[in-house]
Amino acid sequence: MIKVVILGSGNVGRHLFKAFKNNSEIEITQWYSRNIKDIHPYSNFVEITDQLDKLVLADIYILAVSDDSIHDLSNQLSFSNRFVCHTSGSKSKNELNQKNRAGVFYPLQTFTKEIEVDFSKIPICLESSNSEDMITLKKISKTLGCSYYETDSNQREKLHLAAVFVNNFTNHMYTIAKDITDKSKIDFNILKPLISETVNKIYKLDPKEAQTGPAIRGDNKTINKHLASLENEKHKELYKLITDLINDLDHEKL
Amino acid sequence: MIKVVILGSGNVGRHLFKAFKNNSEIEITQWYSRNIKDIHPYSNFVEITDQLDKLVLADIYILAVSDDSIHDLSNQLSFSNRFVCHTSGSKSKNELNQKNRAGVFYPLQTFTKEIEVDFSKIPICLESSNSEDMITLKKISKTLGCSYYETDSNQREKLHLAAVFVNNFTNHMYTIAKDITDKSKIDFNILKPLISETVNKIYKLDPKEAQTGPAIRGDNKTINKHLASLENEKHKELYKLITDLINDLDHEKL
Repeated sequence: MIKVVILGSGNVGRHLFKAFKNNSEIEITQWYSRNIKDIHPYSNFVEITDQLDKLVLADIYILAVSDDSIHDLSNQLSFSNRFVCHTSGSKSKNELNQKNRAGVFYPLQTFTKEIEVDFSKIPICLESSNSEDMITLKKISKTLGCSYYETDSNQREKLHLAAVFVNNFTNHMYTIAKDITDKSKIDFNILKPLISETVNKIYKLDPKEAQTGPAIRGDNKTINKHLASLENEKHKELYKLITDLINDLDHEKL
Repeated sequence: MIKVVILGSGNVGRHLFKAFKNNSEIEITQWYSRNIKDIHPYSNFVEITDQLDKLVLADIYILAVSDDSIHDLSNQLSFSNRFVCHTSGSKSKNELNQKNRAGVFYPLQTFTKEIEVDFSKIPICLESSNSEDMITLKKISKTLGCSYYETDSNQREKLHLAAVFVNNFTNHMYTIAKDITDKSKIDFNILKPLISETVNKIYKLDPKEAQTGPAIRGDNKTINKHLASLENEKHKELYKLITDLINDLDHEKL
């Protein structure tokens, strides 16, 4: 049984709590939040606290807090030489105070309060200061059914950057598309099968090979018509820039 | 039984052929391609031709050809007052020579030669010059199991523009991400669950509501770190521009 203390009650903290709660190989020994009201509804299932000096002994302390809070929170821990991890994609392991054994448990997924996630489908990026702590991280990942990868801080940062493109920026493409369809009184749902198929393709083809559309065809008539049709100046600029980038790809091939 | 002649042997033409071939309510009377070699392998299943003056009588002629060829090909048809459709998202119905009854049968999907598609999951945008021809278009859509929408040329053009964002541009976000992971010797597969979840969210939330990441959080530290980490100048520019656009959204809310 791995004893875990979760610190933080944001999206990641809550999703971790749910994933750990029904797991027979993990015991959530305690859940800390500075806003104890947030986790009060869970007090029947787990010991909760808002006092750092009341933290109990555990095999791992998971700091599921915002990037900017990791450093301070790890400084405030009153114990030392225990195993303390953060869950951030973009922060180095060294962001954690080195009085404890530092590690990273970064679930590479987008968490939204309202939406349930199947933890077993989430890849976890793991990092630790010694091989024994890595064993703990791997055990936790395995018991959740997750695939896991040992990545150093540099690789994890690059992954986080790539994640911004495939998740945050892709989602913004959907926002722009919905803006266009809304303005023309078209049901956005018409686009959803296309959105799904775009993703299905990456399981079958390299994205470069999967590229279609006016930019890769060099279809300037359509490109110009689209540019004229876009009302938002920044959307025009974006359309030009991505078209340009897709064009560059085509030249790489030659 | 609806008698169909397909003109064109590109991705759309081939996918239409496959979808119609096993359909008991549709008879592919003929398949035309100016490059008859392309469709020769199908000559056991359908009459093929590369001569426009040999086209037989049918209820509908579907021009599944490139945008730029629609006008010329429709001019070259030797008959008149028959029902002739194109399959383009961005061209007006009037691109077709008006000696025939013009229509549009635009399957809103991305077609790749190597990848099978389930036609029943494709929304079709329909347009015709009269209600009787619309009935034919709807019958074809229904018998394929497709959802279909009557859209005018303006709406269809806007849909096509929106499709470029959700399909072509999103795919380019994947290309950039793969470029980043490849350069850091990270397995691109790690990102696939995140890519899938990003899409799953649009079935549950408005994309504006689903937006996460450093841009919407106003997390300038991470944004600056990402910008410093990007090697390609156009990728930097793109990162800035989309971050800016996501920021604008946040201000809209206030």
